Amino acid sequence: MQDAQAITETAHEMADAAGRAILPLFRSSGLTADNKRPADFDPVTEADRAAERAMREVLARRRPQDGIFGEEYGRQQGSSGLTWILDPIDGTRAFICGAPSWGVLIGLSDGEKILYGIVDQPYTGERFEGGLGRSHLLTAAGARPLGVRDTRDLSRATLMTTFPELGTADEGAAFRRVADQVRLTRYGLDCYAYALLALGQIDLVIEAGLQPYDIAGPMAVVQSAGGIVTNWQGESAINGGQVIAAATPALHRAAMELLAA
Amino acid sequence: MQDAQAITETAHEMADAAGRAILPLFRSSGLTADNKRPADFDPVTEADRAAERAMREVLARRRPQDGIFGEEYGRQQGSSGLTWILDPIDGTRAFICGAPSWGVLIGLSDGEKILYGIVDQPYTGERFEGGLGRSHLLTAAGARPLGVRDTRDLSRATLMTTFPELGTADEGAAFRRVADQVRLTRYGLDCYAYALLALGQIDLVIEAGLQPYDIAGPMAVVQSAGGIVTNWQGESAINGGQVIAAATPALHRAAMELLAA
Repeated sequence: MQDAQAITETAHEMADAAGRAILPLFRSSGLTADNKRPADFDPVTEADRAAERAMREVLARRRPQDGIFGEEYGRQQGSSGLTWILDPIDGTRAFICGAPSWGVLIGLSDGEKILYGIVDQPYTGERFEGGLGRSHLLTAAGARPLGVRDTRDLSRATLMTTFPELGTADEGAAFRRVADQVRLTRYGLDCYAYALLALGQIDLVIEAGLQPYDIAGPMAVVQSAGGIVTNWQGESAINGGQVIAAATPALHRAAMELLAA
Repeated sequence: MQDAQAITETAHEMADAAGRAILPLFRSSGLTADNKRPADFDPVTEADRAAERAMREVLARRRPQDGIFGEEYGRQQGSSGLTWILDPIDGTRAFICGAPSWGVLIGLSDGEKILYGIVDQPYTGERFEGGLGRSHLLTAAGARPLGVRDTRDLSRATLMTTFPELGTADEGAAFRRVADQVRLTRYGLDCYAYALLALGQIDLVIEAGLQPYDIAGPMAVVQSAGGIVTNWQGESAINGGQVIAAATPALHRAAMELLAA
């Protein structure tokens, strides 16, 4: 892609802007001493909206030809064939608990697939970037290459999901069929789980009920690291819904069989 | 206490030393490219032991008169009446998943109560310190005072615990009686949950099966912030076991009634 550099520069500027909008509001609910805000002030909603506005301002200035699909402000048509898919704060429940496992999600779609994406955690200073020839975790200490690990047996796999009570009763039962076979199951990390998969720290993420903007950025990051992201039927996960991300084809296949059983 | 400054300086030196021992091993299992380590190398066990040795070296040099009770290397008698209670890595499962919610726990006991403690997260650069007149979160950005929030009704409370399947069947059922009444329940944060309670971000932590070194440091931090930490019967939590930490007396009482029901 000719303008890969312009795209990635834009994405980093968007992530920077979102972080600047969100961080003053993260953990602000505990700051009651000098709180002159109205009683119904909702820091996470305010941060969500401010961050998406900040990202849209960057796009309006740098890439007005691209479309936008954001969680807070919906769809805006473009003319380039490219669409930015934005979730300004994925993991709002983690955010309201003060836990730094939420993230700013940025994905870029050509209408059929996700070309590029970022999962950014501005409080810890971690930016996971994948696609257009890039695949790394950027921190103040530098860049670390992403790469999934080579786990092939469920019995040796670490699985993550956000809620123990995920999805419908059938979806929960399907998830537990996989959870019963793995070495370790952990909960509650939202988008950060996909980042840990891309970093070679865990092996599987299984979720249900996702929106397209929940998965676009994470999908690009995991795929750039050599991982697989599909829906539970093995088809594209671009529309969200039931999503499985796996480190290896063998693990992906084994987990999908249990989900369908 | 006359030597409060010597104690807190020692504790910070211990936390610094533990962090230096652990951080090179955190997320190291993903670094397979140039891995010359033996196949059975276990980063978390190695980090756990190296960190406790590093903390014991500081104590041997600065405070040889104090006793030590550490997770990895057991008990060492002292002559001062003070005992340092150490868990070099609380949250080993989070550690092996690459999630930065584990912590270095340091507590100081006079044999009856916990006088002082630290919950340190070296990857995020967060150090929660409480007792001996101190109560703050220290980061590169400075010191932020700790303080629990004033949540009094279970229906408005956020609850955390480490595993959905906590403890025995009876303990799990007791936990769920509380979880069914609160606004939000989150899982998987180990010692970091107590830090978030002290920071005024959540309201309740309920756990079972704890060791004394799992709770000494967190107890000091939560109590310094105005919170309450006891066992499920309302007695001292210094021996671990079933532990409840609450932001307010009303919340503590309401949750204990449900746990005992």
